This record gives sequence, structure tokens and C-alpha cells, in this order.
Amino acid sequence: MSTDRFRDLSNTALAGRLGVPRVPLLRRYEPGQALLPGPALVTSVGAGRFAKPIRALVEESGQQAVDEVGDQKLAAVVVDLTAAVTLDDLAAARAILTPAVRKLAPSGRLLLLGPEPAEAAAASIEAAATAQALDGLVRTIAKELRAGATANLLVVAADAPPAAVDSSVRFFLSARSAYVDGQVVRIGAPVGSPQDPAAMDSPTLPEKPLAGRVAVVTGAARGIGAAIADTLARDGATLVVVDIPAAGENLAKVANRTGGTALQLDITAVDAPERLIAHLTQRHGRVDLLVHNAGITRDKLLANMDPDRWNAVLNVNLRAQLRITEALLADGTLLQDGSRIVCVSSQSGIGGNRGQANYVASKAGIIGMVRALAPVVAEKGVTINAVAPGFIETEMTAAMPIGTREAGRRVNSLRQGGLPVDVAETIGWLGRADSGGVNGQVVRVCGQSMLGA
Amino acid sequence: MSTDRFRDLSNTALAGRLGVPRVPLLRRYEPGQALLPGPALVTSVGAGRFAKPIRALVEESGQQAVDEVGDQKLAAVVVDLTAAVTLDDLAAARAILTPAVRKLAPSGRLLLLGPEPAEAAAASIEAAATAQALDGLVRTIAKELRAGATANLLVVAADAPPAAVDSSVRFFLSARSAYVDGQVVRIGAPVGSPQDPAAMDSPTLPEKPLAGRVAVVTGAARGIGAAIADTLARDGATLVVVDIPAAGENLAKVANRTGGTALQLDITAVDAPERLIAHLTQRHGRVDLLVHNAGITRDKLLANMDPDRWNAVLNVNLRAQLRITEALLADGTLLQDGSRIVCVSSQSGIGGNRGQANYVASKAGIIGMVRALAPVVAEKGVTINAVAPGFIETEMTAAMPIGTREAGRRVNSLRQGGLPVDVAETIGWLGRADSGGVNGQVVRVCGQSMLGA
Repeated sequence: MSTDRFRDLSNTALAGRLGVPRVPLLRRYEPGQALLPGPALVTSVGAGRFAKPIRALVEESGQQAVDEVGDQKLAAVVVDLTAAVTLDDLAAARAILTPAVRKLAPSGRLLLLGPEPAEAAAASIEAAATAQALDGLVRTIAKELRAGATANLLVVAADAPPAAVDSSVRFFLSARSAYVDGQVVRIGAPVGSPQDPAAMDSPTLPEKPLAGRVAVVTGAARGIGAAIADTLARDGATLVVVDIPAAGENLAKVANRTGGTALQLDITAVDAPERLIAHLTQRHGRVDLLVHNAGITRDKLLANMDPDRWNAVLNVNLRAQLRITEALLADGTLLQDGSRIVCVSSQSGIGGNRGQANYVASKAGIIGMVRALAPVVAEKGVTINAVAPGFIETEMTAAMPIGTREAGRRVNSLRQGGLPVDVAETIGWLGRADSGGVNGQVVRVCGQSMLGA
Repeated sequence: MSTDRFRDLSNTALAGRLGVPRVPLLRRYEPGQALLPGPALVTSVGAGRFAKPIRALVEESGQQAVDEVGDQKLAAVVVDLTAAVTLDDLAAARAILTPAVRKLAPSGRLLLLGPEPAEAAAASIEAAATAQALDGLVRTIAKELRAGATANLLVVAADAPPAAVDSSVRFFLSARSAYVDGQVVRIGAPVGSPQDPAAMDSPTLPEKPLAGRVAVVTGAARGIGAAIADTLARDGATLVVVDIPAAGENLAKVANRTGGTALQLDITAVDAPERLIAHLTQRHGRVDLLVHNAGITRDKLLANMDPDRWNAVLNVNLRAQLRITEALLADGTLLQDGSRIVCVSSQSGIGGNRGQANYVASKAGIIGMVRALAPVVAEKGVTINAVAPGFIETEMTAAMPIGTREAGRRVNSLRQGGLPVDVAETIGWLGRADSGGVNGQVVRVCGQSMLGA
């Protein structure tokens, strides 16, 4: 499989030739895999409301949940800081974390839960400062951890019940989040009624968390799009894969191996929204997960940018997504309570990128669209989020000159490029019916790339 | 002067020895300098309300304001995109910018004005996407420009009148913003009544924009703090410089050369707020600009962090600022309508930094404090903002190993470290009475460092 080829290359042959240290091998999800490979420290500062249910989750998954650091290696460290309101609370967090990070196992998971700074400000300015300090702290820890361990922060709104964080805690503790590092994700009161409440009480990661859900993936014929289709199908979704007619042969292969249907469609065509809606209406009568993945690049410095390059990229990457999303919302029948929309933005859309003014404008535009639509779609029980991949090993990056490619791979805290499946797993998490607490967010899948500001 | 030594070193001897390209020499502000050294393109897409007053500002400063790209080099390019609401408007911006960036002179200024994405969403989702696209676009342009030219974006709230952007447009067009690049600053309706409305109609940058204002600078005995004191004094402010007793000799020098008063004070002392308030009350009866600059580092990986290192840094960098600010607000007499508070955060406080968990927590905490206090102090006509320096040439960075230092200097779009005066100029802008449109913002002074995400 191509992704294994990439990993082997960077781990052995290439690393040897370049004389660079071996990159850590990241633990990745495989069907049947337990939530955690070892015990977890789960504790809190003050009266956090999440430590108890998270401890129960860990124990029900078959692992020990300890509340103090001992001699054993820890597969995960979870500290509920949602009740932290003072600098003394922050110092208490430091006292927990210093011994804990020493015990974190390879591919370990450090997960903090903290209050929302804007909400904390209502209590005191010190509370707001404390909340924001966690943001910097987790990004620092992520830069200090080694051996594939990650650190992330869930910022939890005051009105979010423990169940709202459940799918996110599962994702960030599990191997599914292998390449999501140094990120801060906000969780609010859940949007939509989970269609499968039983999954939320499941003692282990359900094998098929997307069972019964109809998922559409655009640009699915190859690369990240194909990985998304494969991963969603693995997790139980019924797929509708979309790509341009020229990619029809590959698209058919993806449809066949995922047991889904293929829809050959140029998403920039005038009648594209109409045709997609017709296909979905006839086959399924619904869409539970819409993944706007299709995208193109036409790189050129802005000084040399012609209207054709500009328009081609903006039309595929942004205008088509706007039109299709608006048509689906106007349709009113396919997107239902619990449906999820996930857009593929890019790290470049956050920080800009030399030679990609058109691509960056489109991917930043996606972020604007996601944030603007979040409150609109929430009224229908729908969420919309974006993933922003960093350096992901694809045919595109494989074609880069070796210097550029190696630099791209190394300038992140995990010292390697991500795999398409890492983007796909993140989309799978956001696509779950019980991920309604996550809305309007942009989640980077970048190994905490140091670029992008 | 030490800053010149740094610049000469990186421009000639060192660059020669390392075989790296000469770094661009940045145009910096000197008293009497004209706003711009050449003509400016000032135009808009749609019915932007800012192009006309900005054109007037340029012409009154003695330069030509053109509305089309011709043969001549441009000292500045200003495009008012506040009325841009569609992807067609975005394409129109591209059509303006492509020929314009080719004509931008060394140390040129590209300044976009755009709508606030959250406000644009009320018009349409496409408008929100368009607004956010400008964010990515300006960061990309900043990465593509060469020879010391910068690109920045002012996000202007719908209720901000043209006068609200005036001081910011002056700052970003002028040489004062030499090291502020790739940044996005929000401007809203002005907070506080400008104490010197005449300055806002001034045809050129007033020589003394801080005349009549009392400014307090903590940590002013050396480094960035001393540069802040020097720069604010140059611009007309009356200085109160503060530092620990051990730095008393240097502090006295700064006080003497700025014509200010020195206050030896450990800001972490229990009675520090009280003593500062007493000094200000007795000498001036007011404070128009409070600059929280004092800060320390005690670096250590979190795994090896002891409580002393943690507490020392948090107490100086965050707790003292919280206490002093709250005491001044409680005092109720010193901070007045038009007063400004500026905190010195750090790029590390945004993106985290390996080995600096304590420092990062404190500097992220400052950001939390600034955002939380902004709406509170606005009720009194006061603003609070933060600057976040990147790699600034100081005694601290001069002591780094050459490899680390050169890497730090080069990983930004201007390919050099900034000077203390660059931080100081930014604080001077935020400290003006007529900068009330800027509140709760964090402005990086980092040459668009590629680190920090």
C-alpha cells in the first residue's frame, strides 16, 4: 500500500541516506484496537466535571485509570482543568504535569480540558488569563514531547455536558488522532440529537461508529479523498464518491472497494448541485456526512498570476463548495438532524503560502464559510467544521524535490509527514452523530507544523 | 549604538562569512521623515469608504496618490476591500494586486482594508468567505514580497468611521511599522475621545504624537524596555520608568536621557501597585499610557520544571501585571478617557515554545488578560492591547550560539531579526489617543516569523 511505502521510506532507507534520526513510528488505528495500550492518569484541578466520566471511559475500555503518577508508563495523561480559575490552579497543573510527562509512553496522549477564556472572563480577569495560559502550555508540551506522543487541549464551554466531549476524548486518546498535535478544539453544547445514543455509552470505541450513515466525499478518486472514502467505509458509512469524469476509472475502483456508488460530476458545473441532490434523493433520501474534499492547485507568484489560474482554483475549491452547500441547505430534506459537513481547508489557508495566493484565498475562504455557516446549520441540528492538513504524504508531495520534501516533513513536532488516513480519521471523528459539540472549528492535521502563522 | 552594530553585523561581516544573501535594509522612522518616500496607489473594489480619506492623507503628506498602476515605482499600495462581498470582488482585487506588487519599491507598504468575516456573514456566506480569504491572501503576499516590503490587513468593523483607521493607516504606511509584516489587525468604533483631535487632521505624521501624555514603562532599564522609553520620549511623552532596584543605575540613565522620572520597584512586591499609584498620583495625577514590559525567563523543559522557576516567571510576567492593572482600574483617577494600556506578550505566547512552558504560560496569559479586559476598560474610554515580539536583537539573543541565532533571524519574511525600536514604535502607535479603534488586539512584531503556530 502506498502509505506504507512512504512511511518505510522515511523511516529507514531515506533517513539512513540523509543521516537524520529515525522518525518516531506513530501508533495508528486498526479495527479491533483497544482505546489505549496501557494505563491512563486521569485527574483534575479543582472540581472538574469531566475526570469522573473519562476515568469510567478508560476503565470500561479495559485499562486502568490512575489518579497519581507511579512507576508505570502511562499511555495517556488527562487533566481536567475546566475548573481552573487562578494562577495557583495553573501551578497545580504544572505540579501534575511535570512528573506525568516523564512517564508518558511512546505515542502517548496528553489531553487537557480547559475553560473557554471568553467565558472565564465573566468570573475574573485572572481566570481568563489562566484559561488562555493553557493554550500556550499545551502547544509547548506538544513541542517538548517525543516518540510520537501528542498534546492537545479541549476548550469546553460552560454549558457543554460531559456527554458532549465523549467522542472528542475518544478521538484524542485513540490512535486515530496520530497526526493531530498541539491543537486546541472548542466543544460546546451538542448540536443535533445523536442518532445513535447507544454509541455514547459504549464501553469501547465502537467498531462501526458511522454505521447507518450516508457519506458523500468529493474528489474521492485518489489521494486524500480516496483515503477518506476508505476510512469512512471501514467505520460503517455508506459511501457516495464523487469526482470528475476524467477520473472515472479510479473513482469506480474506490466505489467498488467501499461498496458505495460513484457519481461522475464536475462540481463546478452549473447543474452540479442539482445533480448531486438528485443522486442522493434517489439513492438514499439523506446525507449524514458531506465531505468537501475536492481541490486543485495552480501555483504562481501573485505578481505572475493570471485570471485563469486564479479563477480555476477559486471555482473548484471555494465557489463550488459554497454553491453545493447552499443548495443542500435550501433543499431542506437531505441534511437532517445529526448531519455533519466537513470541509478540507489547508494549513496554507491559515498562515498563507508563497506561490499559492489563489489556493490560499480559496482555503482561507473555506474557513470563513465554515465559521459563518456554523450557527446557521446548527439550527437544523447540523454541524460544519474544517480540517486543515499540513504536510501529508501523497502523490503530489512524492513528486517534490527531495530537499523541499524532507524540509516539509521535518518542520513539525512529530518529525514526519502525515498520511492521508490521518486526515480521514479526523473527518470521521467530526462526522459522527455524537460529535455535535464541535461546530465551526478548524482542526489542523499537521503534526503541530511549525509553519502556518 | 548597539542596534546599529547588530544591523551592520547581519548585513555585512556575518552575512559574508556565512555566504548567505544580504538581508534587506529596512527603512525605519527618523524624526522629520515624510510619511512615504514616493507615490502610492490608493484604490478600492466597490464602494469602499476609506480610499478617499486615505488618498487625501497621502496627498497632504506631500506624495502623489494614483488610482492606477503606471510605470513608476510605488512606495505603497492601499486597496480598500471593505465593500468586497463576492468572489468576483476577490478576483477584482487580484487584478489590482498582480501589477501593483510588481511596482512596489523596496521597504514598500501593501495595506489592505477588509470587512470583518463575522459581520460579513450577516450579508451572505460568500461575503464571509471573501472576507476571510483576504486574511490568507495578505499573509501570502507578505511571504512573496522582497526587499523589506511588508503586507498587512486592517479588518474594519462596519461601525468604524474613517477617522478610526487614521492612526493605523499612518502607522502601517510609515517606516514605523518596519518589522510588522503579514499581520491582521481589527479596528472597531473608537474607544475614548481623542485628546488631541487636531492630530487626526494633521497633513503629515505629527512629530510629537504623544505630546502631553504620561507614559509608564516597566522593565525600562535595558533592552526592549529602554527602547520603548526612548521612543515614547522622542514622540513627546513624559516618562515614568520602572525597574528593580538592582537595575537602578541603568534606570537612572534612561530616566535622565528621556527627561523622565525613575521609580525603583519590584513589581512583584505586595505594595508595588500602591507605590506605583502613589508615584503617579503625586507626580502627574494621571497615566495616559501604561506599558507592561517587565519580564523574565527561567527556561527548562516541563519534565524538569521546578516550582521556583514556574512561580518566578508567572509572578513577574503575569501576576504582577494583573495586580497592577486591577489596582489602577480600581483607583479610578489615573487611567482616564483616552488612556491606553499595552502589554508585551511574545510570539511564544501564541505558538508555544520548547523549553519555555513557564514563559509561554505567562505570555499566553497576558493575551487572555488583554482580551478579557478590553471590553471592561472600553467603558472608561481606555484600550488594552498586546504586542508579541518575535526574534528581536537584544543582549539576550546576542548571547545565543551563532547557529540558533542565525536560524531565529532568518525564519521570517524579512530575513532578519527586528530591533527593539520596532517593538517600541508599535507600542507608540497603540498608545496614541487616536488609536482607540484598536482594542483587545495582539499585534505580532516578528517580520512575519514562520514560527508560532
